[in-house]
Formats: sequence, structure tokens, C-alpha cells
Amino acid sequence: MTAQGKFISIEGLEGVGKSTNVHFVSDYLFRNSVEHIVTREPGGTPLAEDIRRLLLEPREEAVDAWCELLLVFGARAQHLNTKIRPALEEGFWVVSDRFTDATFAYQGAGRGLPMGDIEHLEQLVQRGLKPDLTILLDAPADVGLQRASARGALDRFENERLPFFERARDVYLARAKADPQRYLVVDATLPLPMVQQHIADGLSKLI
Amino acid sequence: MTAQGKFISIEGLEGVGKSTNVHFVSDYLFRNSVEHIVTREPGGTPLAEDIRRLLLEPREEAVDAWCELLLVFGARAQHLNTKIRPALEEGFWVVSDRFTDATFAYQGAGRGLPMGDIEHLEQLVQRGLKPDLTILLDAPADVGLQRASARGALDRFENERLPFFERARDVYLARAKADPQRYLVVDATLPLPMVQQHIADGLSKLI
Ligand SMILES: Nc1ncnc2c1ncn2[C@@H]1O[C@H](COP(=O)(O)OP(=O)(O)OP(=O)(O)O)[C@@H](O)[C@H]1O
Ligand SMILES: Nc1ncnc2c1ncn2[C@@H]1O[C@H](COP(=O)(O)OP(=O)(O)OP(=O)(O)O)[C@@H](O)[C@H]1O
Ligand SMILES: [Mg+2]
Ligand SMILES: [Mg+2]
Repeated sequence: MTAQGKFISIEGLEGVGKSTNVHFVSDYLFRNSVEHIVTREPGGTPLAEDIRRLLLEPREEAVDAWCELLLVFGARAQHLNTKIRPALEEGFWVVSDRFTDATFAYQGAGRGLPMGDIEHLEQLVQRGLKPDLTILLDAPADVGLQRASARGALDRFENERLPFFERARDVYLARAKADPQRYLVVDATLPLPMVQQHIADGLSKLI
Repeated sequence: MTAQGKFISIEGLEGVGKSTNVHFVSDYLFRNSVEHIVTREPGGTPLAEDIRRLLLEPREEAVDAWCELLLVFGARAQHLNTKIRPALEEGFWVVSDRFTDATFAYQGAGRGLPMGDIEHLEQLVQRGLKPDLTILLDAPADVGLQRASARGALDRFENERLPFFERARDVYLARAKADPQRYLVVDATLPLPMVQQHIADGLSKLI
């Protein structure tokens, strides 16, 4: 029997460098011969990616916040039960670009849905499974939004205004503070090589 | 201030005559000058209809039952908060082809998800709002499945086998028995004119 793999999530606001550093984590694990898969949320399976599209595409219809929350957790159930859990059980590590912290930050702080209800859904869907390590790339909300809007067409979240992201950032930081064992908070305004040095230090402790 | 409209759902297994009788209910209300809208679940708004498509289309990927449940309630939140509640508040009656009873029958009894978890989601999304009248068209599972398969291509639920629908029927009937005030159970194997006579009797009491 192989040991259970470890689960790493990368979190942070728009454009802070999550995807860039998911690649860095993957390279680091590869160089250390750690078998792993790279995935993302919302998404990660064909059905979950279809749900992602419904969540992100701007639409004329006002999207109800509860609908958004339930779609996020629906995609997560599919992702977790058909991809993440099987991979971990086979001994693969899993590196995910966003996970449930993003739900507390965006649907909780951003949209104003009750944190207790989100915790209940987390329990319903995850049954206690949480990332072993969450790398939080922290930066003031405007930094990443500028990086993101430089890229062109904005999705339904990127179209939100600054206070939405300021509330989300505060919740990310509060969650990290409440559980320093699980979170590695990295100042994402640092030059990329320094960001990655911090991430490498965190990973070296996990391996 | 106008009085709140009434909310009627039509339930039952595949092919028992729900859509046929939603039209009959609408005609009946029209003849009695009751302003109303006709809608369906899953669906009823553009976003909720997009979610319906994800739920119904057969796909190679195995669909996780929790994902299915959360998509159903996500579509319901959108439908309820952006269409059903506003209509009821303006005094319109609402006639829906399926509602939450179908979730207890299909995702609960059919898929085997815990009824208590479904009740919790019902409370989260509906905050106490339930249909004033639920017309349950009851027939043995094979009757409607034969009517449905005569129509051609089967969706992801119609592809389920008989025991799935037998479990669903039992739960529909048990729920009706537990709350006889709310449910009108009609034998859907009767000739359509007799089915509709029973429905008309039930509606006459509500108006
Ligand atoms: N520490 C850094 N300093 C400066 N630029 C950075 C840094 N990290 C990433 N970038 C750049 O910022 C941009 C956004 O990075 P990336 O796409 O990785 O962010 P993201 O968090 O995945 O964004 P999104 O939330 O939109 O997916 C890229 O052009 C990337 O090269
Ligand atoms: N009481 C009845 N006796 C015989 N045939 C009926 C009766 N009620 C409906 N039908 C016929 O059964 C078929 C299915 O009816 P209908 O489409 O209304 O069912 P449904 O419950 O809406 O199906 P679905 O679950 O697939 O939406 C139609 O051809 C309809 O004319
Ligand atoms: Mg990215
Ligand atoms: Mg129908």
C-alpha cells in the first residue's frame, strides 16, 4: 500500500501569480521526484469545467449568490470525488490552483453569504478533507487587478469592484492567521524569484 | 398591496403526464381569471436552464451524486430568488413542472443521498417556502418509462433502470402520505379526462 499523497492549494486574489506559481510548485515536486497532478478550481474535470464556464461568463441575468455558491460546491464535489481523492489515495500529490479558501473569500466575504453556511457545505462535500498546505499569495487588491486587466476580457469576478476584493483579501488573511500550520502566506508584491524562494522553503518542510 | 400568489408544483416519474397537466392547470387558472406563470425545474431562467442541460445530457464522465444534488439546488436558488419569489410577491400564481419533491425522490431515494442533508439544503435555499399544492401524478414506474421511451432519445435520468424509479415512487408516495394537506395524489394510469377531473377538483378548493 502506498502512502496517501499530499494536497496543496494555491490561493489569492486575481492576478497575484497563482498559475505562475502552480507551475513552480509542479517543477519543484518534479525535481524532487514527487509524483503529482496539477489541477484547478472551479474545474478540474470536464463536467466541473462546464460548471466553471457557467460561473465565469458574464451574463445579463443577475446571478443569485446562493446559486453561485452551490455551483462552486457542485463543481468541487465532482472534482474531489472523481479526481482529487482517487489521486491522493493512489499516492499522488495534488496541486490545485484555488480550493475552498476561495469560496470563503469570494462567496463569503465578497458576496456576503454567511460563513457558517459555507462551513456546512464544506463539511457536506469534503467530509474533513482539507489541503495539507495552502500557499496564500497576498497582495493589495489593486495590484493583481491591474495585472489581470492587462490581459484583456474580464470574467464575471474580475468585473467586481475593489471593495469586493478588499473584503476577500481580509478573509484570506484572517483564515491564514487562524491556522498558521496549514497556511504559508507569501508577499506577492515581491519580485517573483523571492516569492518562489519562500514557496520552495515551505515545500522543503512538507516533503 | 396585492395578496401573495399561490405556488403549485406538479410531480411524478418520467412520462406520467406532468407537462400535459401543467398545461391543463394553466388553462384552468386562465378560465378562472387567476394571473399566473408556468415554469419548470430544473430550469426556469436562462442560467438555470444552462444548469438543467448539464444535469440531463448523458456524458461519459460518471457524475458524482453530490455534484448532481448541488447543481439541482443551485438551479433552484436562481429560479426561486429571481423568478418564483418575485412573481408570488406581485400576486401571480406559479405553476411549476417539478420542484423539491423530485429532489427527495431522485437524488434521495434514487441516488441514495441522505434525506437529512437534502432537507438541510432545502432549508438553506428555500427558507421555509414550499408549494401550497403539489399534484402528484402516481403510476407504476414502467408505465411512464414506456411513454417516455416512445418519444426517442433518453436523458441521463431516463437512462436509469426500473429500481431507481421504484424507489423514487415510494418516496413521492411517502411524502404525500405524511402531509395530505399539501398533496393531491392522482392515479396517472386513469384516462386523461379523469386525471384532469381530479385535478380540477383540487384546484377548485384552492381558488
Ligand atoms: N511576483 C510577481 N511580480 C510581478 N509579476 C508577477 C509576479 N507573479 C506573477 N506575476 C505576473 O502577473 C501576471 C498574473 O500572474 P498569474 O496569471 O500567475 O496570476 P493568477 O493569480 O493565476 O491570475 P488569475 O487569478 O487571473 O488566474 C502574469 O503576467 C505573471 O507573470
Ligand atoms: N392519463 C394519461 N393516459 C394516457 N396517456 C397519457 C396520460 N397523461 C399523459 N399521457 C401521455 O403520456 C405522454 C407523456 O406525457 P407528458 O409529456 O405530459 O409526461 P411528463 O410527465 O411531462 O414526462 P417527462 O417526465 O418526460 O417530462 C404524452 O404522450 C401524453 O399525451
Ligand atoms: Mg490563474
Ligand atoms: Mg414533461
